Amino acid sequence: MSLDLRVYLVLDPAHTGGRSPLEVAEAALRGGVTVVQLRWKVGPLREMLRWGAALRELCRRYRVPLLINDRADVALALEADGVHVGQEDLPPEVARRLLGPRALIGVSARTPEQAQAAEAAGADYLGTGSVFPTGSKEGARLIGLEGLRTVARATRLPVVAIGGVNAENAAACIQAGAAGVAVISAITQAPDPEAAARALRRAVDEALAARRLEG
Amino acid sequence: MSLDLRVYLVLDPAHTGGRSPLEVAEAALRGGVTVVQLRWKVGPLREMLRWGAALRELCRRYRVPLLINDRADVALALEADGVHVGQEDLPPEVARRLLGPRALIGVSARTPEQAQAAEAAGADYLGTGSVFPTGSKEGARLIGLEGLRTVARATRLPVVAIGGVNAENAAACIQAGAAGVAVISAITQAPDPEAAARALRRAVDEALAARRLEG
Repeated sequence: MSLDLRVYLVLDPAHTGGRSPLEVAEAALRGGVTVVQLRWKVGPLREMLRWGAALRELCRRYRVPLLINDRADVALALEADGVHVGQEDLPPEVARRLLGPRALIGVSARTPEQAQAAEAAGADYLGTGSVFPTGSKEGARLIGLEGLRTVARATRLPVVAIGGVNAENAAACIQAGAAGVAVISAITQAPDPEAAARALRRAVDEALAARRLEG
Repeated sequence: MSLDLRVYLVLDPAHTGGRSPLEVAEAALRGGVTVVQLRWKVGPLREMLRWGAALRELCRRYRVPLLINDRADVALALEADGVHVGQEDLPPEVARRLLGPRALIGVSARTPEQAQAAEAAGADYLGTGSVFPTGSKEGARLIGLEGLRTVARATRLPVVAIGGVNAENAAACIQAGAAGVAVISAITQAPDPEAAARALRRAVDEALAARRLEG
């Protein structure tokens, strides 16, 4: 599946503001999200599997790749399109070996060294941040737009900016070299997730168009 | 790899009484442990992978299977012999699909219904408990020796008794139909893990011999 990172939704079904996570996901897909990552940190895995199967069908209908956070076995079980792994998770080369050459494998990388290591290990894209302060991931260290720019320049891989990104600051991330923006609460906690996704998509599309004109 | 469940060590490297988990594992293997399960609930996965690779080599030297708790991807990454899954973990049929026909797959089953479902799903053995009260797993519900007997009678699969088992009560588990006993703290928190493993092995071997004579 081709990789369009413009608006990358990280979905934790435990954090959708009390609403059905599938409804939030579908609203976000209607609004123009281009990737969905399923993250599940607590609770029974069986519940994630049931729920993930429904999410996979939804993503297929919208032709949007579904990635699983960290667990390659869950990605295999769900026939998801790939995994996203952190620096302390399953190594990307192991994920590649388990999931095969066509899987999408993303790696969190906050420094040029991590970016180059992930590229050498066969990653398809990088998740880079936290660009801005965020309440979704406590203890996340800030790298700012300058850190994002540094990582984006250090790799040939597309980079998705994460951490406190919203429709107002998304353009700055694209200008700093990101191929897209990843969000959690900017969509899942929004009063209208579809409108929130659409606003992000518009901001990213406009910034990408402007970058192409400048380039 | 053949399945000898007589003394089944569940090893959580975070709970070895401040001692090197590899040293505790090797002492337990010298003492006669016949299966090792690696359980890892907190901390970076990369650390488990480094540590698990050393444990796998150790288990191979002793010709004892190494199973991974819950994560089939970690079992694949470590080339472990299989996985053990709970009722809320990865379904055994999914583990079988991911790991192949030769992998060892164990399932926690505390009722005849769970035992029969696990058998139908292709499990190789069952872990059944908690037989006795235990401090290692808080909130574990007791089934007692009667519950163990009920499960063992309901399935053709070998059953390993877990929960508060020690050298004193191991024989009662075998008499109730278990093929072996699984322990955590009885070995890992023992002043002398090798002696603790040896005492468990002796108790199980004597009880199995007595059962054969009676049978």
